[in-house]
Amino acid sequence: MAKEVMAEVITIGDEILYGQITDTNTQWISAELDKVGIRTVRKSSVGDREDRILEILREAESRADVILMTGGLGPTKDDITKKTLAKYFGSQLVINEEALRDVAEIFSRRGFELTELNRQQAALPDNATFISNKVGTAPGMWFEKNRKVFVSMPGVPHEMKWLMENAILQKLQRHFSTPVIYHKMIKTVGIGESFLADKIEEWEDSLPPHIRLAYLPGMGQVKLRLTATGDRLAVLEGEVQAQIDRLLQIVPEYVYGYDKDELETVVGRMLLQRGMTLAVAESCTGGYLGHAITRIPGSSRYFTGGIIAYDNRVKVEQLNVSPETLEKFGAVSEQTVREMAENVRKKLNTSIGVATSGVAGPDGGTEEKPVGTVWIACADGTNTFAKKLQLFKDREINIKFASLWVLNAIRQNLPPVGVS
Amino acid sequence: MAKEVMAEVITIGDEILYGQITDTNTQWISAELDKVGIRTVRKSSVGDREDRILEILREAESRADVILMTGGLGPTKDDITKKTLAKYFGSQLVINEEALRDVAEIFSRRGFELTELNRQQAALPDNATFISNKVGTAPGMWFEKNRKVFVSMPGVPHEMKWLMENAILQKLQRHFSTPVIYHKMIKTVGIGESFLADKIEEWEDSLPPHIRLAYLPGMGQVKLRLTATGDRLAVLEGEVQAQIDRLLQIVPEYVYGYDKDELETVVGRMLLQRGMTLAVAESCTGGYLGHAITRIPGSSRYFTGGIIAYDNRVKVEQLNVSPETLEKFGAVSEQTVREMAENVRKKLNTSIGVATSGVAGPDGGTEEKPVGTVWIACADGTNTFAKKLQLFKDREINIKFASLWVLNAIRQNLPPVGVS
Repeated sequence: MAKEVMAEVITIGDEILYGQITDTNTQWISAELDKVGIRTVRKSSVGDREDRILEILREAESRADVILMTGGLGPTKDDITKKTLAKYFGSQLVINEEALRDVAEIFSRRGFELTELNRQQAALPDNATFISNKVGTAPGMWFEKNRKVFVSMPGVPHEMKWLMENAILQKLQRHFSTPVIYHKMIKTVGIGESFLADKIEEWEDSLPPHIRLAYLPGMGQVKLRLTATGDRLAVLEGEVQAQIDRLLQIVPEYVYGYDKDELETVVGRMLLQRGMTLAVAESCTGGYLGHAITRIPGSSRYFTGGIIAYDNRVKVEQLNVSPETLEKFGAVSEQTVREMAENVRKKLNTSIGVATSGVAGPDGGTEEKPVGTVWIACADGTNTFAKKLQLFKDREINIKFASLWVLNAIRQNLPPVGVS
Repeated sequence: MAKEVMAEVITIGDEILYGQITDTNTQWISAELDKVGIRTVRKSSVGDREDRILEILREAESRADVILMTGGLGPTKDDITKKTLAKYFGSQLVINEEALRDVAEIFSRRGFELTELNRQQAALPDNATFISNKVGTAPGMWFEKNRKVFVSMPGVPHEMKWLMENAILQKLQRHFSTPVIYHKMIKTVGIGESFLADKIEEWEDSLPPHIRLAYLPGMGQVKLRLTATGDRLAVLEGEVQAQIDRLLQIVPEYVYGYDKDELETVVGRMLLQRGMTLAVAESCTGGYLGHAITRIPGSSRYFTGGIIAYDNRVKVEQLNVSPETLEKFGAVSEQTVREMAENVRKKLNTSIGVATSGVAGPDGGTEEKPVGTVWIACADGTNTFAKKLQLFKDREINIKFASLWVLNAIRQNLPPVGVS
C-alpha cells in the first residue's frame, strides 16, 4: 500500500468564525476523504482576511499532501479567496474561458444579463485547473505545487458536495494512486451497540485483515460499516457480500437495510410490495410518527392518514377507545394502545393500524409510570402486537424513539411477501 | 474601549477529525465569545496526538490572547490533553485535592467505587487553576502565561457549556477587562430579510453608535440582534428597550417574541391566556404541525388533537369535507382547506381549527398547482382565514414552512386578551 496521504481541510469566512452559521462542510469532507483512504490531520476555519489565509496556507502546506478549502468565492468584495490564492502562488487572475462559458450559461438560463461583477467570477489564478460547477456560479479550482494539491471550492454545501462527488474525489484518488476502497453500510435497529457487539464478536474477529468493521451508533440504530481495501473493486464487493451473508445468519432480525436505506423507506417499500396500507393513532408522539412516514416522497401510496388523539376525549370520541379502559388502566397502558391501533385500522379501513401512548415528559410522570414510559401497538386485523418501552427523560428524544420503535414493529410484524 | 481580545478555539479528538461526529462546540463557543466582545481569529481541530497538540498550542499562542480547548480529558489512554498541556507548560501532573473531592462525590452519589483510573481524572498540571465541573467528572482548567490565557474543557457539549456559562465567560471578562455588553434578540416571522431591512432602514440608521444591529435569518424567520456596549448594564438595558419600543411602532405585526421565545411556545402561551384550545387537520404536513405544537412541554393544556387526512377518503369520511368540493376544486384548494379547518374544529370541539393541504413534492405538481403550492386555513367559529403559499421544490422544507405559516396564522388571528 502506498504511503498514507495527509489532508488539511480549511473553511474560509467570517460568518463561520464568529459562530453565525454552522460549518457542516469540514465534517462531510473529512468523512469522504476517510472513505477513500485519505487521513485528515487538521481542520481549521479562518476569516476573510488575506494575512490569515496566507498564513494558514503556509502552515498547511508544511504538514499535508492535500489542502481542501471551501468558502470566500462569491462575487462580493469580502470574498477574497481567489485573489489570495493568486498571491500565494505568485500567479495572476485571468478570465478562464471555460469558466466564463459556465457563468454565461447560468445567467442566460435564468434570463439575467451578465454584469462585470459576474464576469469576474470566471477570473481564476492562471495556475489553476478549472473544475466545472454545474450547480452554481463559483467554480472549483485545483492547484499543484511540488506534487502537493490545493483544492478551492465554494462554501455552499450542495455546491461543494457536487464538486467533491463528481470530480475532486476521483482526481485525488488518481493523483495519489490511493488503493481501491469499498464501503458497505449495514443498518440495524432494535439492539444497542454493546449487545450487538457481543452477538457478532466471533464474526468480527474472523474478518480478514483487509476488511475493517466500524460501529456508527445513532439514535436507536447502529450502523455497521465494512471497509475493504485492495486492488479490484469487483473482488472487494464479492468479499464484502460474503461477509454480510454470514452476518445475516447471526442477526437476521436486526438488519433492516443497507447504505442509504432509511427505516421509513424500507417500511414503505415493504407495505407497497404487499399492497398494504397504514394508519396511525398518536398520543404521546403528537404527529411525529405521521411526519416520519410522510416525509418520504410517495408515501401517499401506502399511508392513508391518522388520528392525533392527544386529549383522552379524542381517544374516546374519534377512536372509540372505551371510557372504561381509560378509567381502569389509564391512557398509558397496553389495553388503551391496543384499542387505539385496532380502532384506527378499522376506522380508516387500512391493512395496518399502529398506536402510541406514553409519558413524553418532562412532567406527568408517576411512580408507576415514570417519564419515558411508552406503550406502542401494531394491529393487522388478526393479531395485535403491543410493547412497553422504558425510554428517557428528554421529551424530544422520547417522541423520536417511540416513533422509531413503531416503525420497527411494523417491519417485524408484516407477513412474508405473497402471504396474506 | 480596551484593545480587541483575540481568541483561538481548538477541538481535540480523532473522532472529530475523521468526520465521525459533528463538532458543535466551536460554533457555540465562538458565538458566546462574540457576545462578550472577544473575537475568534481561528478555529481548529486536531487529533489525539502529542506532537499535533503541541504544535497547535505554539501556533495559537503566537496569534491569540486566549486559547480555548475542548476534548481529550476522558479517563482512557487515548485522551492525552492533560499530559500534553503539562509538557507544554513544563509542569507536572499532580492530584488536585478540590478536583478529587468533586470526582469522589460524583462516584459516591452514583454508588460506584473510585478506581485508580478515575482518581487520575483529578490529576492536573500543577500550574493549572482548577475549575469545578458540576455536571461531569472531567474538570475545567485555566492557565496563564505572560497574560495569555489557556482554557481546557471537556468535549461533551453540555459539560463544556456548563463550564463556560458558570465560570469561564465571567473569568475571561474580568481578566481582559472587556466592556459590558448587553444583547437582546428580537424574533420576527412572516417577512423576508430584505423586505424587513427596507421597512426598518430609517430606524437602523438612527441607532446610536454603541448599539449595533445584526440580522440573523433562519427558516421563514428573521432574528434581529441588538448589541449594546458600555459601562453599566442597567443603562444599556434601558437604552435597548427604548429602541425596541420604537421598532414595535414600525413593524408590530412581525415581532412575535424575544430571546429564547419560540413561535410554538408563544402561540401556546397566547392560547392559554385566552383559555382556548386547538385542533389540526393535516394533509401535506402529514403530522408535522401536530409535532411542532406537541414538542413543547405542557402543550396538552391547549392542544386537543387532530386528523391526519392524507388520503382524500379520510378528508371525506373523518373530516366531512364534501366530495363535491374535492371534485370541483381539488384537495389543494381554498374551499377544501376551509372545510378541513372548520370541520376539525367542530369535530374535536375546540376554539380554533387549522388545516393544511398542498403539493409538498418532489412529484405531484401540475401547471396550475406546481410543487410548493400550499393552502392553509385557520377557523375560530366566526371567521375562517385562508391563505395560499407558494413555497419551494424541497419536500421537507415545504412541510416545515407550511407548519410555520399556520402557527403564524393562529398568532395573527387570535382575539386580544379579554375579548371572546
